[in-house]
Amino acid sequence: MGLFNFFKSKPEVKNSAHIAKERLQIIVSHQRNEAHSGIKKPDFINKLQDDILEVVKKYVNIGHNDIKIDIDSQGDRSVLELNVTIPEESNQPKQALNA
Amino acid sequence: MGLFNFFKSKPEVKNSAHIAKERLQIIVSHQRNEAHSGIKKPDFINKLQDDILEVVKKYVNIGHNDIKIDIDSQGDRSVLELNVTIPEESNQPKQALNA
Repeated sequence: MGLFNFFKSKPEVKNSAHIAKERLQIIVSHQRNEAHSGIKKPDFINKLQDDILEVVKKYVNIGHNDIKIDIDSQGDRSVLELNVTIPEESNQPKQALNA
Repeated sequence: MGLFNFFKSKPEVKNSAHIAKERLQIIVSHQRNEAHSGIKKPDFINKLQDDILEVVKKYVNIGHNDIKIDIDSQGDRSVLELNVTIPEESNQPKQALNA
């Protein structure tokens, strides 16, 4: 899996406070391949974004400022990138973690 | 965003049937940075996996065979990769899409 290298290669801001933070990075790529099938397919990446954030909030207490959202579309491919910085105090295991 | 290049660089099986399929790829990286804080933090990537798959199933009809799951852990970083092949017939917009 080349993913570890991909995440390691991502330039991180070098100040120690930034590095020390617990982080969650979620990337969603939706490749619709409409050219081949000739069928226009629904792009539901925005809906996935809202639902995935709700899922994350089940496990850690995060606020609006802890979340960075990037969406990019090229042709029939959309890519969503969610970068979540998890505040220190939100680490006590939430009830859901032990369910 | 280097993500497009990352997804384009992923070697795909070259037969046309494979290329034509609609695909959803979800990657989750959880960097816990325990070394710095000295606090052991819960790894909830397995729980995220189940919940995220439930979210995807709200939008497309997929079966067990349409989903490939990879989880890898190194030190205090875990990476989950979900590869979902979306069957042709499951593309008619599900009720959730129009909600």
